[in-house]
Amino acid sequence: MTQRSSARERILRAAILALSSHGYAGTTARSIAALGGFAPGVIYYHFADLDEVFTATAAYTSELREERYRAALAGVTKAVPLIRALRTLYAEDLESGHIEAVQELVAAARPGSPLAAAMAAQTRQWELLAEEILARLLRGKPLGRLVNVPTAARAAVAYYLGMQTLTHIDGDASRPEAAFAQAARLAAAFDKLPALRRRPRPSRRS
Amino acid sequence: MTQRSSARERILRAAILALSSHGYAGTTARSIAALGGFAPGVIYYHFADLDEVFTATAAYTSELREERYRAALAGVTKAVPLIRALRTLYAEDLESGHIEAVQELVAAARPGSPLAAAMAAQTRQWELLAEEILARLLRGKPLGRLVNVPTAARAAVAYYLGMQTLTHIDGDASRPEAAFAQAARLAAAFDKLPALRRRPRPSRRS
Repeated sequence: MTQRSSARERILRAAILALSSHGYAGTTARSIAALGGFAPGVIYYHFADLDEVFTATAAYTSELREERYRAALAGVTKAVPLIRALRTLYAEDLESGHIEAVQELVAAARPGSPLAAAMAAQTRQWELLAEEILARLLRGKPLGRLVNVPTAARAAVAYYLGMQTLTHIDGDASRPEAAFAQAARLAAAFDKLPALRRRPRPSRRS
Repeated sequence: MTQRSSARERILRAAILALSSHGYAGTTARSIAALGGFAPGVIYYHFADLDEVFTATAAYTSELREERYRAALAGVTKAVPLIRALRTLYAEDLESGHIEAVQELVAAARPGSPLAAAMAAQTRQWELLAEEILARLLRGKPLGRLVNVPTAARAAVAYYLGMQTLTHIDGDASRPEAAFAQAARLAAAFDKLPALRRRPRPSRRS
């Protein structure tokens, strides 16, 4: 079981590498196997076909990164350390091939396909994580009354994806850098916003 | 000249339709011609190949929509009417096939390809438009001191693209709807923020 799952993981890690270095069109059993250092036939022992490899890769890379995000952001309740942590996590996302692999999979996901369903399911997980973090951040802040947390979380995930897509297309890495610098400035101002005083309403004592 | 350019436009309009209804992979000279009601050979009279049709379509649909956005947003300096107008424009984007066509072209744009260069150039135009609007919106507002307009404009364009990509993948139209409703609430609060009093600095008159 463990051996089987570690062989599976080896394939998925090689698939991430193949997607990020050769693109979706260049990711074949052969190119995955070459990067992973195993025979192409091994892939078909663990997966029915390449489509299954792609949907499994979408889940695998997303879950790995989400685990890492959850661990890194567990105690974070303020905006400044949040942005600092997100910046580090984003650098890891890039370094690990996660971002390029996801970009390739998103581009390849035909609406209605199993790959699109896998990407949608993973997106949902990221939206839920963003919700948790935003809820912690907004607790007691006056802005919290104006913001619908699930909607804002979905917007945050959409922004991340779009920012990566544009960076993927034009190769301009200054976009995420400038965005994190801007976010850091806003975060500092946000953390200085006074929290609402929580008084029981009726007993205003007038 | 006019006749030639109107034939060209007819091809590009048919290409938008083909992209939005058949996807990139299903957009061939034959499917474009069938939707446009002309012979496939007409395409090759105006374009060297299908790749040229795709880059021209990217520019055409984007420029058409940008013109429309510029006209609709020309006098807008407040957030509430801005969000109202964006909502209408977004509905038009959908209706016209623009969004689906752009999604297909973005997905098909390999980094470094002429299509990617065309998409990047169009993105730049949208970022400049977003800059103009944001600059008008933030003029005199305290938030204006915290926000780098070009960076925020790039973020806004990235968000729009990502939101559309996610909607394309999971078909959940509630995402943009909820986002516009949320934006409308924030816009109302934003428009109530007091403008900064522009006092002459001490040195100016003394």
